[in-house]
Amino acid sequence: MPFNPDSIKAVVFDVFGTVVDWRTSIIREGRELGERKGIDADWEAFADAWRGKYQPSMEQVRSGKRPWAKLDDLHRESLLELLDQFKINGLSEDDIDEFNKAWHRLDPWPDSVEGLTRLKRKYIIATLSNGNVALLTNMAKRAGLPWDAILGAEPARAYKPTPESYLRTADFLGLPTEQMMLCAAHNDDLVAARSHGYRTAFVRRPDEYGPHQKKDLKAEHDFDVIGETIVEVAEKLGC
Amino acid sequence: MPFNPDSIKAVVFDVFGTVVDWRTSIIREGRELGERKGIDADWEAFADAWRGKYQPSMEQVRSGKRPWAKLDDLHRESLLELLDQFKINGLSEDDIDEFNKAWHRLDPWPDSVEGLTRLKRKYIIATLSNGNVALLTNMAKRAGLPWDAILGAEPARAYKPTPESYLRTADFLGLPTEQMMLCAAHNDDLVAARSHGYRTAFVRRPDEYGPHQKKDLKAEHDFDVIGETIVEVAEKLGC
Repeated sequence: MPFNPDSIKAVVFDVFGTVVDWRTSIIREGRELGERKGIDADWEAFADAWRGKYQPSMEQVRSGKRPWAKLDDLHRESLLELLDQFKINGLSEDDIDEFNKAWHRLDPWPDSVEGLTRLKRKYIIATLSNGNVALLTNMAKRAGLPWDAILGAEPARAYKPTPESYLRTADFLGLPTEQMMLCAAHNDDLVAARSHGYRTAFVRRPDEYGPHQKKDLKAEHDFDVIGETIVEVAEKLGC
Repeated sequence: MPFNPDSIKAVVFDVFGTVVDWRTSIIREGRELGERKGIDADWEAFADAWRGKYQPSMEQVRSGKRPWAKLDDLHRESLLELLDQFKINGLSEDDIDEFNKAWHRLDPWPDSVEGLTRLKRKYIIATLSNGNVALLTNMAKRAGLPWDAILGAEPARAYKPTPESYLRTADFLGLPTEQMMLCAAHNDDLVAARSHGYRTAFVRRPDEYGPHQKKDLKAEHDFDVIGETIVEVAEKLGC
């Protein structure tokens, strides 16, 4: 059965990499911190290392090895390890808190605000991110992302790709998963959502991981919509 | 110490009665249903009776007599009882579901959209309502309420005035309660929030319960801000 854009009521979004360019933003924040504090560091390597600790830190929660912890707290634990590893000293607790909130200040890709604004006319648009509510709310306010609702791991108390992250997000919106579409730049996220009945939109972000990105360079499955930008996804959905 | 508007980061809102006029809207929905289905009923009495079951239905959850249930489900159970009590027959399950969603289609008070829009420039604005996420999201989309986040009883899994409803909402926004302000038309809601550290804004809604309203005709405590409208609250906060 071909996909009918009128069969869905909500388009929910992966955020890191799909809607915002975390890597360039974290590098920018690192450099700004470095200039303020006179710290010389390889901020590209630092950004990649920080993101490298993202999945392992959530896996501690997903596996049940530790109780629920919000992403801000996981990010901060990873940050402390990396400051040690990169031999960055002399930051106060306030400096560290402020740098940790760099994840609240990620810049959107150039097409994100226009694409979301167009989709919002026809659909409910919401986050389905592993980011916590404060992070996503502050990011949206700064970047002008016009979400109808901030949903995802924290309200669901389950990190993607745990089934409950997808199922509880649909339940919050009072919709069967067949009326939900996930838009993401990551094949594995979309495959997981699809296994629970979600419709899927792949948006290609070949620079998410910088110039040497190896993964997610293209849609590897027959997703319902495939676009180079969120604007193209909106157009293909008739928005 | 006098209240300083720069000391708060988020203004969260009670919704039913404070932001939207539930009574006029439910009466309108009842009359429309009556015309479509040829049902003659006292829709004013029906609206008041439906709202009359609101607190008792939540009390079942608050007291632990029954597990968590979202407001849409509580509303539907109350609706079934009232259809019987008012001897309204012949509605299909779909008709009943649709009428139950009248609570998703409540109209804002005339000042609500402007007041929220002004507050949003300076503060995070979010719901702190007993309404469930789908109800509040659909309402906001229809009425143009520009929330930054949809929070309250369902994400907190606690109905007001349970302490967790206030505390978890602040935690979702990553803020100490002293940086949160609750805006509500109900003295008891504000007193409960204040007991947990919230700042408070009373907005007077003397017609919420119709022409014979007896409660909440004025602020009965020394709240931080008191206004006739949300626009006046915004002005007093410097927005």
